[in-house]
Amino acid sequence: MISKESITNEFKALQDAICQGLELEDGVSKFQQDSWIRPEGGGGRSRVIENGALIEKGGVNFSAVFGDTPENIKKSFGYDDSEFYATGVSIVLHPKNPFVPIIHMNIRYFEMNDNTWWFGGGIDLTPHYIDMEDAAFFHKSLKDVCDRHHPTYYSIYKKWADDYFFIQHRNETRGVGGIFFDRLTQKDKKEKLLAFVIDVGKSFVPIYSEISRKKKEKEFGDAERDWQLIRRGRYAEFNLAIDRGTKFGLETNGRIESILMSLPPLASWKYNYIPDEKSAEYDTIQWLKKDVDWINK
Amino acid sequence: MISKESITNEFKALQDAICQGLELEDGVSKFQQDSWIRPEGGGGRSRVIENGALIEKGGVNFSAVFGDTPENIKKSFGYDDSEFYATGVSIVLHPKNPFVPIIHMNIRYFEMNDNTWWFGGGIDLTPHYIDMEDAAFFHKSLKDVCDRHHPTYYSIYKKWADDYFFIQHRNETRGVGGIFFDRLTQKDKKEKLLAFVIDVGKSFVPIYSEISRKKKEKEFGDAERDWQLIRRGRYAEFNLAIDRGTKFGLETNGRIESILMSLPPLASWKYNYIPDEKSAEYDTIQWLKKDVDWINK
Repeated sequence: MISKESITNEFKALQDAICQGLELEDGVSKFQQDSWIRPEGGGGRSRVIENGALIEKGGVNFSAVFGDTPENIKKSFGYDDSEFYATGVSIVLHPKNPFVPIIHMNIRYFEMNDNTWWFGGGIDLTPHYIDMEDAAFFHKSLKDVCDRHHPTYYSIYKKWADDYFFIQHRNETRGVGGIFFDRLTQKDKKEKLLAFVIDVGKSFVPIYSEISRKKKEKEFGDAERDWQLIRRGRYAEFNLAIDRGTKFGLETNGRIESILMSLPPLASWKYNYIPDEKSAEYDTIQWLKKDVDWINK
Repeated sequence: MISKESITNEFKALQDAICQGLELEDGVSKFQQDSWIRPEGGGGRSRVIENGALIEKGGVNFSAVFGDTPENIKKSFGYDDSEFYATGVSIVLHPKNPFVPIIHMNIRYFEMNDNTWWFGGGIDLTPHYIDMEDAAFFHKSLKDVCDRHHPTYYSIYKKWADDYFFIQHRNETRGVGGIFFDRLTQKDKKEKLLAFVIDVGKSFVPIYSEISRKKKEKEFGDAERDWQLIRRGRYAEFNLAIDRGTKFGLETNGRIESILMSLPPLASWKYNYIPDEKSAEYDTIQWLKKDVDWINK
């Protein structure tokens, strides 16, 4: 069976490849790395890019942490093994141009012993302005990745993303969704599941490059920038008030700057702001709902 | 015994007086009111001021809600009466000038029956730049209000504010604190407790006027504005990830625009931003801790 060290190395290599790919796409800024150590065991490499041509602020995190299982992990996962191992790659990019969407990707592996382990992860897209073609391309690309591994993955994980990336108090989805999966485990199939999550990870740069290239030089004005900041406010609401990953990090004393790297460089909250009907902003809100079949729209 | 209707009317009158006082201080913008109705019983008057000379964005909310007790209220309060009544006034002001602090005030009354009722509330100050004189004045003013009602109130409620307005994941207080109290109840003393919370409410405008007048026309540049936005980011972190009032509102399906009125008009998150030592920004961070005796510093 493939070892946790091998999985960790594959994740690390993926972080390297993604950062290289994104630097090429950006063309101006480079990632800055902070390595950090977790006193109780393990650590990580946080990489942040700021003020780029494409990316206003973005982070590509790798971490591998292990040691005695904290009580809250035991409780929330329902296992009481004394030791745990967790590794993952986590990305959020806030683009400069409002016509380019925010994107998030995460893959992770968790292990307690040879019989108790799982993979989790996902990718989701948060356009400030929804472009139906981009949304279809995004979902088609994810479906292609899923279909290479299992015919039912896409439909199940697409639905899971709709449910997970949902801002209950706003009654709207975070964006056009994507895929989300957790606790993937199957006896004697660890290699196959690893191949799937690595494939998800490798799809990230090609997908985002395709979507961002079409728009990153599109002209925009104050109105579009203002709208971008409002949508980023919603993103911050999701990450701070809802996201289980963020909550878990905050409650388990993780490295705070790595956890909150996902927060936008600039965001705004206007009281009771409702865009004019028939505006592009209004249209976008109408599509922020679950169960849209983006591919066949 | 004083009725809930009388308390409600006193709270309403307080909202009126505070809005009038703040409009005078601002001199440019006026409050806009949205009345709303809670389908299950009650409603409120949300008042928001934006783009003023003093206040960039601020809200003064009044609400009185009642009806069948929601299950989550029963659970979180530990009472299972079938009906409840809750009324309160809640304020957050985000000033335009970074040298003027953010301020928050809340007073509330909750009742289940003639024997089960309590008052809660508090005021706390969040300077972008801590001014020791202002902090001393602020705490001295609150101590004066408290002392008029009970000699131990200030020391207990000051400590309570330090503990409540604390951003655990940043290991810093939200600002210089103030007073916080909850579940104040005493048989046959409802009038006295009401007089205390009303006195707290009435102190709001004079205190904030005094503090803001000295600074609202002080010149500032991009550096101070940037720092203000970073501190507002922390404020958003507290309100979205920690504040029990916000959480309660979001989970009980309150009017979302009234609950999130407290969020800043514009906020920023810079990765791992640490101000230069010996800067005013650095000094401010050093004071963001519990148990500072601001009055006798």
